[in-house]
Amino acid sequence: MTYELHYWPGIQGRGEFVRLALEEAGCDYVDVARLPARQGGGGSNLMQMLADSIPPPFAPPVLKVDDLVISQTPNILLFLGRRHNLAPQDEAGELWVHQLQLTLADLAAEAHDVHHPVSSGLYYDDQKAEAARAADAFRKQRIPKYLGYFERVLEGNGGVGAGLARDALTYADLSLFQVVRGLQYAFPNAMGRLSKKIPRTLALAQRVERRPRIAEYLGSDRRQAFSEDDLFRHYPELDP
Amino acid sequence: MTYELHYWPGIQGRGEFVRLALEEAGCDYVDVARLPARQGGGGSNLMQMLADSIPPPFAPPVLKVDDLVISQTPNILLFLGRRHNLAPQDEAGELWVHQLQLTLADLAAEAHDVHHPVSSGLYYDDQKAEAARAADAFRKQRIPKYLGYFERVLEGNGGVGAGLARDALTYADLSLFQVVRGLQYAFPNAMGRLSKKIPRTLALAQRVERRPRIAEYLGSDRRQAFSEDDLFRHYPELDP
Repeated sequence: MTYELHYWPGIQGRGEFVRLALEEAGCDYVDVARLPARQGGGGSNLMQMLADSIPPPFAPPVLKVDDLVISQTPNILLFLGRRHNLAPQDEAGELWVHQLQLTLADLAAEAHDVHHPVSSGLYYDDQKAEAARAADAFRKQRIPKYLGYFERVLEGNGGVGAGLARDALTYADLSLFQVVRGLQYAFPNAMGRLSKKIPRTLALAQRVERRPRIAEYLGSDRRQAFSEDDLFRHYPELDP
Repeated sequence: MTYELHYWPGIQGRGEFVRLALEEAGCDYVDVARLPARQGGGGSNLMQMLADSIPPPFAPPVLKVDDLVISQTPNILLFLGRRHNLAPQDEAGELWVHQLQLTLADLAAEAHDVHHPVSSGLYYDDQKAEAARAADAFRKQRIPKYLGYFERVLEGNGGVGAGLARDALTYADLSLFQVVRGLQYAFPNAMGRLSKKIPRTLALAQRVERRPRIAEYLGSDRRQAFSEDDLFRHYPELDP
């Protein structure tokens, strides 16, 4: 069984949350759009696939396996969590982890909208003034609110080493790692100032990073670098 | 079995997607924050409940039943869809409907951010210039893209009367009704211009509205009116 992941080539983006789950679970998968165009890769083939799918996904990432065509990142993770034991199997546990993932998705969307507050259809340079105001609120209010929330969850879950669903490693833990590293890339000064208040969150990110399969992935050329074409962007003027 | 819905009093907001599902399913529920404060209602009691919950929800809406405390709107609907037959019961169908709901949640979030492009912590009056630019892109690009997508889904699902998951009525159909009516309230001119291109979407909204339990709900005082304190806001300057 080989998974096909379809996502915009050249960036981590929302596809990265899916990649981390596939890597941690040791899944066999093809990152289709990163293949050469003659093998079905590239943005044009991706857009054609979206246009040809019935029923259609709204946007990448799309995960295909067997006859399933699954889109929306938290939805893909809900599916992978069940299949690959990346979430508790009981109803309460499954819903709890999905809630956390949806909250992380909201945070990631806000991190994107900081550099695109007016429109995702315009360049950053066309909305720099608005982005400067949005970044101020994001750094001072939203990052502390969100990461303070995850810190509180981890604190409630008990001793050193607990994850977001206590002992089980879940797709939400993997995603929290990605969000923390993304925010540290985009807002190093703000995250540095916040670091003393979120020790459990930072420790969890580090534990995820050191898991054997994740560490191997992060050191491979399958992992793409953060960049200013991506969801998390470092613009020094937005992180004074 | 009585559900407790906890959501900010005085607005439809994201809680409305949950209310519509509870109403359509004929569930017994209490809209807790709308009770008098001495009976546990009001914003202060709501915030206290959030602070006291272990593990904590990030934000309302929160649905409580038995020992479950469920938050994040699409997650609550995933749960209600299973329990009350508001989604297909097979895996592919469940994931398909959840994907649609997540896409509707993205659209609702963008509709909110049009009047709060800089920060949800500032008043609209403090970000009117930015909102004017954001509304232009939202009206011209995002509404047509999103509603054009749902139109395409409905078209692919076949004959007159088909919903987002063909014959089954789902929580995503209920939510699409709410989003369409919200957008018509907030952007009557833009939605009027778009109407000829989305006949199936508008017909589905009308069919939902006429379902007996939904019609009864909409005519009752349990349904709160749209307003400028809410997610969908009508500011004439944003809809020329």
